[in-house]
Amino acid sequence: MEKLYFDSDYMEGAHPLILEKLMQTNLEKTTGYGTDPYCESAREKIRKACGMEDAEVFFLVGGTQTNTTVIDSLLRNYEGVIAVDSGHVSVHEAGAIEATGHKVIQLPGQDGKLQAETLEHYLTVFHADANNEHMVYPGMVYISFPTELGTLYTKEELEQIHKVCRQYQIPLFVDGARLGYGLAAEENTMTLSELATACDVFYIGGTKVGALFGEAVVVTPGTKIPHFFTMIKQHGGLLAKGRLLGIQFDTLFTDDLYLKISGNAIIRANRIKELLVQKGYKLFLNSPTNQIFVELSNDKIKELEEKVSFSFWEAKDENHTIVRFCTSWATTSEEVETLGQLL
Amino acid sequence: MEKLYFDSDYMEGAHPLILEKLMQTNLEKTTGYGTDPYCESAREKIRKACGMEDAEVFFLVGGTQTNTTVIDSLLRNYEGVIAVDSGHVSVHEAGAIEATGHKVIQLPGQDGKLQAETLEHYLTVFHADANNEHMVYPGMVYISFPTELGTLYTKEELEQIHKVCRQYQIPLFVDGARLGYGLAAEENTMTLSELATACDVFYIGGTKVGALFGEAVVVTPGTKIPHFFTMIKQHGGLLAKGRLLGIQFDTLFTDDLYLKISGNAIIRANRIKELLVQKGYKLFLNSPTNQIFVELSNDKIKELEEKVSFSFWEAKDENHTIVRFCTSWATTSEEVETLGQLL
Amino acid sequence: MEKLYFDSDYMEGAHPLILEKLMQTNLEKTTGYGTDPYCESAREKIRKACGMEDAEVFFLVGGTQTNTTVIDSLLRNYEGVIAVDSGHVSVHEAGAIEATGHKVIQLPGQDGKLQAETLEHYLTVFHADANNEHMVYPGMVYISFPTELGTLYTKEELEQIHKVCRQYQIPLFVDGARLGYGLAAEENTMTLSELATACDVFYIGGTKVGALFGEAVVVTPGTKIPHFFTMIKQHGGLLAKGRLLGIQFDTLFTDDLYLKISGNAIIRANRIKELLVQKGYKLFLNSPTNQIFVELSNDKIKELEEKVSFSFWEAKDENHTIVRFCTSWATTSEEVETLGQLL
Amino acid sequence: MEKLYFDSDYMEGAHPLILEKLMQTNLEKTTGYGTDPYCESAREKIRKACGMEDAEVFFLVGGTQTNTTVIDSLLRNYEGVIAVDSGHVSVHEAGAIEATGHKVIQLPGQDGKLQAETLEHYLTVFHADANNEHMVYPGMVYISFPTELGTLYTKEELEQIHKVCRQYQIPLFVDGARLGYGLAAEENTMTLSELATACDVFYIGGTKVGALFGEAVVVTPGTKIPHFFTMIKQHGGLLAKGRLLGIQFDTLFTDDLYLKISGNAIIRANRIKELLVQKGYKLFLNSPTNQIFVELSNDKIKELEEKVSFSFWEAKDENHTIVRFCTSWATTSEEVETLGQLL
Repeated sequence: MEKLYFDSDYMEGAHPLILEKLMQTNLEKTTGYGTDPYCESAREKIRKACGMEDAEVFFLVGGTQTNTTVIDSLLRNYEGVIAVDSGHVSVHEAGAIEATGHKVIQLPGQDGKLQAETLEHYLTVFHADANNEHMVYPGMVYISFPTELGTLYTKEELEQIHKVCRQYQIPLFVDGARLGYGLAAEENTMTLSELATACDVFYIGGTKVGALFGEAVVVTPGTKIPHFFTMIKQHGGLLAKGRLLGIQFDTLFTDDLYLKISGNAIIRANRIKELLVQKGYKLFLNSPTNQIFVELSNDKIKELEEKVSFSFWEAKDENHTIVRFCTSWATTSEEVETLGQLL
Repeated sequence: MEKLYFDSDYMEGAHPLILEKLMQTNLEKTTGYGTDPYCESAREKIRKACGMEDAEVFFLVGGTQTNTTVIDSLLRNYEGVIAVDSGHVSVHEAGAIEATGHKVIQLPGQDGKLQAETLEHYLTVFHADANNEHMVYPGMVYISFPTELGTLYTKEELEQIHKVCRQYQIPLFVDGARLGYGLAAEENTMTLSELATACDVFYIGGTKVGALFGEAVVVTPGTKIPHFFTMIKQHGGLLAKGRLLGIQFDTLFTDDLYLKISGNAIIRANRIKELLVQKGYKLFLNSPTNQIFVELSNDKIKELEEKVSFSFWEAKDENHTIVRFCTSWATTSEEVETLGQLL
Repeated sequence: MEKLYFDSDYMEGAHPLILEKLMQTNLEKTTGYGTDPYCESAREKIRKACGMEDAEVFFLVGGTQTNTTVIDSLLRNYEGVIAVDSGHVSVHEAGAIEATGHKVIQLPGQDGKLQAETLEHYLTVFHADANNEHMVYPGMVYISFPTELGTLYTKEELEQIHKVCRQYQIPLFVDGARLGYGLAAEENTMTLSELATACDVFYIGGTKVGALFGEAVVVTPGTKIPHFFTMIKQHGGLLAKGRLLGIQFDTLFTDDLYLKISGNAIIRANRIKELLVQKGYKLFLNSPTNQIFVELSNDKIKELEEKVSFSFWEAKDENHTIVRFCTSWATTSEEVETLGQLL
Repeated sequence: MEKLYFDSDYMEGAHPLILEKLMQTNLEKTTGYGTDPYCESAREKIRKACGMEDAEVFFLVGGTQTNTTVIDSLLRNYEGVIAVDSGHVSVHEAGAIEATGHKVIQLPGQDGKLQAETLEHYLTVFHADANNEHMVYPGMVYISFPTELGTLYTKEELEQIHKVCRQYQIPLFVDGARLGYGLAAEENTMTLSELATACDVFYIGGTKVGALFGEAVVVTPGTKIPHFFTMIKQHGGLLAKGRLLGIQFDTLFTDDLYLKISGNAIIRANRIKELLVQKGYKLFLNSPTNQIFVELSNDKIKELEEKVSFSFWEAKDENHTIVRFCTSWATTSEEVETLGQLL
């Protein structure tokens, strides 16, 4: 039996339709840096999918790069970005945000989510502090949808956060590296268009959702990022053959492909959760998207990892560990059922 | 009656002996940037006071500047500095550390102090994490003596922290903006020389302890900061008329002046604590140095602040606030007793 | 007649063998970030092609990103990078190097090349300057092969520069965004292995030479870049699906594909030069690689640009402009001959 | 005979009236960071001297710090600062500007001065360049008055530069580290108030003109630097005992002291020039302020430097060197005449 891989959602290449399109267009000549017709078409389709004719759309290559470029472009030098302790920018980006000169102001989260109350309290105390001129100004808010723990904000929760942001006139930025898996989740009741309205800047993740690579940044009409093209270049995110991004997002936003393939990951993840619960395993938290966090005994882990590859999340106690199983647009029913047999 | 000021320890000018020396030498001509004989003499006296003939000594102008310059000079780009949540570099330096590209890795403190166990646990977990190549490397440890809350590390506590640092081969940097008040505290049993041995780099605060301004960085013999002079220049900390720093520290380290005048602040602070306790006020924590944190009712505060100036620390509840009274080398017995009558 | 495109060398997709391999491997699952077998195989082939078993090889996505990451990783904070005025890092990277805190120390070049004498003179004067502690230290040298003007260093010229670098103990970094076109040029007498020996770090450009994207950084055995993986992550250059880079470079370094396809660009460029000279046009400089710089009258440009796309380089005088024609691995004989008819 | 010192204009302490005032106020208690009445008074006097009631005035400690803080505060991340090749920010600030992420765009100067034509040509070419989105945007202009070579802009020259700046909507910043010596020069026909009108931000140098240290930044009414106080803190330029700066500038701007003492340096410098010319020495350039650049034979230098200390500027040829003599507010007639005898 071949080994099973549930480590992450970036283990395969791209959706076959994307590769097909890359083949078809391979020897065409286009201008670079996103000025080609494929990028224009993809931008148009994304604007339409977001219900925002006047949004600006930019393509970058990867997630850390996108977070860094957007955050550094939105903030002034005396400002920092608010994020939860477990946020990707807080922990897993090798200090990329700080390397551009900005503090990540870490607030406690709940199941990976920022609570509007936590945010409001922080901002209230900050602005009431007579010494705040000696402190980093909170200049924007970063959240992710889904979060690092696979959880989702409801429409109401997102709107509450956005309301606090508008009250303090700071932009809300949503990291959508796994956006498709959030939108496709059964629990989710928010459309792409509603999400776009409830924040100021967000990105649609391609790398983890069917593309070879690529993230599409959507700047909503009310927001201005001056010279963002130059900022992307400066941060090393400007792809010479920009059309590769255009072709991929154009394909993903044709005939709802993005959402359809995201749905597969959800079906597979739900089945894994079902199997885990059936077999009496204890879920670490209820994640409605494509990441499943479960507590396993270290003995079980040892046995399992000969045949299955997955991620270690954190130690629970001496004998138990929280691990993560991750599905993707490409995960098959066979893989999941085989995993079920091994559990 | 004149208003009383207990806001901070930088409200007066300098110790009279310093001003006198500045007058005497005013029209002498010396070379700049710390190359003059006064700086050389001060360096020599500081080395002697630290019992470290081979230490390097550098003079900078202020605290934030010194912290930033030392930290940025000790760290590589992929590294951050560990500090407690309440550390000066974590909160009150306007993001100066992050502005140089480095994350402040904030750990929870206890009464403003970093616990060796907390540090060791963090480092153990970090180095055991298979994903740590995606994270900021802990490259040094920052603590302050006394802490922001006026508390002190015992010799044993400091040595334990240093031991953990050496185990992970990262330098320990001690912010001594109020060093004199720590050394002069009754509770303290550590000499300057012992402190110097139990860390890798530290500074002797002048601004808050009798000088007009100035901090003396001591780099212990085992530590190397390449091109530190150039780094000081780059960080805007190189004083053209460097002798002003030399003259001040030379005076402070002649006949133990630094410790003697620090002692005055302690005597005054202890008396304030005594008065507070006598009158039934509740101390927020036991601070053995020149900062006293006490809980006052908001009514009492309103009454008091017409005649006394002091600092608000944080709200306790709707009707009570933690406030800070701060003494210095210049605080007089009369000021303290008048305060006592008003309490 | 279809329009002709000679704007740049990144107008097409990838060499067909690369796309084929991407198709074949598309649904395989591999671990991310360059830890997969394709990257390992590509690294091994590159090491062999360089004749350097102990070199370290890293894959990044684009040129500006690679320059920034390497330079920021090699330099200390008080150091800058020496480059010629026309260097890519001096002009066309949107301040990416400075954004990481380092000065580009610009020296005058000759036809895009740094002269060893110019370098040596600069370093001699710098080190003799009594005030150099107030200045940016020259910490490394950046050159490109071929240069921005398509010119090449001879083996002797490169070795002379390297000799000066070693004398001053600073690394020499060669930007090889168009490396293939340099190696394949008729004038060139240097092998990849000789180039690798005559510098400290260099990269093999994929984006402009047959790949969809990608640059392979070779760190020669004597050089150490600590935590370079983390630095790549921090600079946004770490591709999640790293195998895309591995697959591309593995293909390019199988059966000498990289050099073979580079040769095509040279043949096409040489033919264009021949046609230009035949027709009496004046070359701006003798570039032996895939970029041809020629002086055209503005009238001729107006006429030509309806049917041909090319780059404006700089105004010569009111009526004449220097333009650039660029060939690539994909340029066909038909395209070139049609251009000839239009000239 | 005592040695003579003409190395620089920061070799003495402060004007006696400043020290006197520091003595008088030494034990007063004031709030910190520039919120005290002395700073307020000094700001008011400076506004009045500039004829600008609505200007904002900030005090910093030193020149490099001031340049870095102002420039980093005025620029956005994609912008750089234009300066001449010989500008202080280009050469002698240890890369402080680049350390904040900004390129110094170096243009050729003439006798240390930026020509309006050079500036206009650069900006015209930049804005006409179709690729300028890949380049650093020129975001402000930095000049100094007097320049590094002691030369002065005429009112017309300054206004022409300012006109170009306004045309391209970028601020003009004037480094006035030696402003007094510029205003007091015989050649100068510009008043402080006229200079203030012909730029957007400038600073009045104290360190080199009678103060112990300190630079007063004047932000003219049309210009906005958001959160400049916090930026000063972040850049390590916020002095805890801010009143030291207030007291010094208040004294310097009482009864025209600043201009009066500057005049002394000019009288002494003019006499040195007269002596040099009388004795047949060749001036390197005509500097109308307190720096005199002259060509000396290396033999003469060797003889002279036993009794006089001065600065080496640059080698002229094998046997001749350009040296600099510098006077200050404190230089005496005796010192100058003794120098005359030694020449």
